Amino acid sequence: MADVDLVVVGAGLAGLAAARHAVAQGSSVVVLEARDRVGGRTLNEEVGPAHPGKVVEVGGQWVGPTQHRLVELARELGVETFTTYDEGESIIEWKGSLRRYKGVVPRINPLILLDYEQARRRLDRLAKTVPAETPWTAPNARELDSQTFHTWLQKVCRTSGGRMFFEFICEAVWAAEPADVSLLHVLFYVRSAGGWDDLISTEGGAQESRFVGGSQRIALRMAEELGDDVVRLSTPVRSIAWDDDGVTVEDVRARRVIVALPPTLTSRIAYSPALPGYRDQLTQRMPQGTVWKCMAVYPEPFWRAEGLNGFGTSDTGPVRLTYDNSPPDGTPGVLLGFLEGEFARKAGLMSHAERRAAVLGVFGRLFGERALAPERYIEKSWAEEEWTRGCYGCSMTTGGWTSFGPALRDPIGPIHWAGAETATIWNGYMDGALRSGERAAAEALRAIAESPNVRAAVS
Amino acid sequence: MADVDLVVVGAGLAGLAAARHAVAQGSSVVVLEARDRVGGRTLNEEVGPAHPGKVVEVGGQWVGPTQHRLVELARELGVETFTTYDEGESIIEWKGSLRRYKGVVPRINPLILLDYEQARRRLDRLAKTVPAETPWTAPNARELDSQTFHTWLQKVCRTSGGRMFFEFICEAVWAAEPADVSLLHVLFYVRSAGGWDDLISTEGGAQESRFVGGSQRIALRMAEELGDDVVRLSTPVRSIAWDDDGVTVEDVRARRVIVALPPTLTSRIAYSPALPGYRDQLTQRMPQGTVWKCMAVYPEPFWRAEGLNGFGTSDTGPVRLTYDNSPPDGTPGVLLGFLEGEFARKAGLMSHAERRAAVLGVFGRLFGERALAPERYIEKSWAEEEWTRGCYGCSMTTGGWTSFGPALRDPIGPIHWAGAETATIWNGYMDGALRSGERAAAEALRAIAESPNVRAAVS
Repeated sequence: MADVDLVVVGAGLAGLAAARHAVAQGSSVVVLEARDRVGGRTLNEEVGPAHPGKVVEVGGQWVGPTQHRLVELARELGVETFTTYDEGESIIEWKGSLRRYKGVVPRINPLILLDYEQARRRLDRLAKTVPAETPWTAPNARELDSQTFHTWLQKVCRTSGGRMFFEFICEAVWAAEPADVSLLHVLFYVRSAGGWDDLISTEGGAQESRFVGGSQRIALRMAEELGDDVVRLSTPVRSIAWDDDGVTVEDVRARRVIVALPPTLTSRIAYSPALPGYRDQLTQRMPQGTVWKCMAVYPEPFWRAEGLNGFGTSDTGPVRLTYDNSPPDGTPGVLLGFLEGEFARKAGLMSHAERRAAVLGVFGRLFGERALAPERYIEKSWAEEEWTRGCYGCSMTTGGWTSFGPALRDPIGPIHWAGAETATIWNGYMDGALRSGERAAAEALRAIAESPNVRAAVS
Repeated sequence: MADVDLVVVGAGLAGLAAARHAVAQGSSVVVLEARDRVGGRTLNEEVGPAHPGKVVEVGGQWVGPTQHRLVELARELGVETFTTYDEGESIIEWKGSLRRYKGVVPRINPLILLDYEQARRRLDRLAKTVPAETPWTAPNARELDSQTFHTWLQKVCRTSGGRMFFEFICEAVWAAEPADVSLLHVLFYVRSAGGWDDLISTEGGAQESRFVGGSQRIALRMAEELGDDVVRLSTPVRSIAWDDDGVTVEDVRARRVIVALPPTLTSRIAYSPALPGYRDQLTQRMPQGTVWKCMAVYPEPFWRAEGLNGFGTSDTGPVRLTYDNSPPDGTPGVLLGFLEGEFARKAGLMSHAERRAAVLGVFGRLFGERALAPERYIEKSWAEEEWTRGCYGCSMTTGGWTSFGPALRDPIGPIHWAGAETATIWNGYMDGALRSGERAAAEALRAIAESPNVRAAVS
């Protein structure tokens, strides 16, 4: 049995960042990972045999300018970034016709745009009243947490077009419908990202840049540094037992444990003693979003020659959002489309062939017939993954934050909680995941330092 | 390794009813139960050493006149019922003063009662539009599922007193706040019980009668009939593996399995192959309620002599609802108080002594000083229980029914789902649990009969 200072459950970005932080402080660490790979919700995939060495990401991929921790770490690890392709016009399918536009504002009825903008301003103002560390202490928190985002939009938007825009963005940001999410959670999430436009923008926002060689390289490089003795793959954690003396996680004995999983998965581990009801019931109220990430690979990004940047939106769906996801040198051409929220749930009941046809159908409507015949079609649903069970992050249900909020990060005995869903800055994003891991590691090391006599020295 | 037709996970009422049904049809069955006892959310407890042989229930206890399956089975098993004590006046604490009243309508401002009644009528009318088998097909289902019960009450009630009444009943029925529950779920639940008054009434409703010797006797008698070879205690199920040939559950091999647990717990089992995302994500949206059931035992039910029936309500709390819970012969006297929803969550963070003082404080305000000094105080929180994790049942969150509804009962391979939360009649009640078990057993036996050649005969 290994005997260390700290054991970490999960080798996603949060778990690896926690381990890296603790090792840098001189602690002994073991990371246990259920999968046969690291990276959690970041995963590179080869574009195809015709393009050796080139990858796309089937998980998280973008980095924005205010995601400082992610930017900094990538630089430190030598993972370079490049700008998301953004030259030329965007395209929108709206009420049965296609419109091209430059910049961020689509050419649709200005009354709808005005309606959207007044609601967006109200949302940003409200979000500023919600402390990201303690959303349950916001003025009027209980009322904000007693209604869905849908209910708020019904009250605040005057046009169905305006509501549709928010619905569409809600799917893009949370992979959930406005009906699924507490208004307070929406406000918390906006606050944690800085503002509404930080979440949804390409230039200046969360989709501004991409990683050369794929985002999973961040996790791969961290794991490489830590080494195989520290990061143990194919080791699902089924039980955690603890007492005053420390914690036993599978065959590792440690003084503290960091559980770096989506909250809904943390309660699938058997704890001894059992977790308090207050913590367990929190995790019953944190469902993960639903998304299929779908890509079509073409010999070249043919839309660029037609003056399009690949950014497309559709009011019809089932793909409601597309991006140019080609590698940095533009070869091959890759169109990326998301099935999100309700569309993703319906897509989960389709056959692979049906889903492929539905996705390519939208690509065809937006970018023309050539889009219908890709050389390869790639798709990934994170709800199907036993060790993730939904992306991007979780959407707290109504009542969750105000009834159970403090249980999200409060340690229980020697158990600390990390993961993108526990972040207070860029919650749900790679940047938040890193921050959460480092926060949990600092917390655990502090606890170890403060009770040096609990066990004999372990190193 | 045992080899049977059917293995059942969980020896609550649903699991035992499933096993009993299958055995009656000539099938071989094994039931695996994590606890060292049967009964799930029904549990008898001795009132105390001064009253040998007398019990109270710390879990589900009442039976109503339209809970036909429960009534019938109890009769068959020789478990008798008696009427909930209902003689004399009820008492309500309202806006700082105490008022006694006869019958079901408290003596408070008639405008509030009128307001409550008009909203109650609207709710019952709406509930009739929701099919209990398929709530997601109700007219306007999506809109009903996009708002919380709280939002609906804000729209429909004209007085804060009227809203308070619904809040109070919501806590009593779901052990949750109106903020926590989808309106569609409230309507479904009302429909499955017959109507609003069926849920909340003592006389003629779900709290009309009690079981002599305690409700757990139903489960104990079923288990006795089945025998120790069938019902195996202290056997937590951690994994279920299946293929075309059948299913392996711990050390039992069977043709079909029935998982008879609260939905949120079903995903804590490791399935091989992993469950589809559609099913897993449903279970992320079905949080269990929060309730502390608290009882104080006195030499005699002293309130009866003062013309009170022990039914009390308080707008202040933290106990908002009390009952006379004395044994059938009236000795000893037992007052029962519930901490529910938000009050139960706060109570979970108190020490035992603080909670006891808070509960007795309410008993004292309602029933006088003698209530402050019981001979014994008993309490139980089902959220703390590793093998339940919340009572009474689950409250589907907004968006849950319409996005994931069909996944609730649809079998996956040889896996069938039972439990009170899957019932279409008296969902969340003992009656619903029994019905769900029998439904699942019939489903499983039919499937076995329809594919007799999949495996060699097992008996």
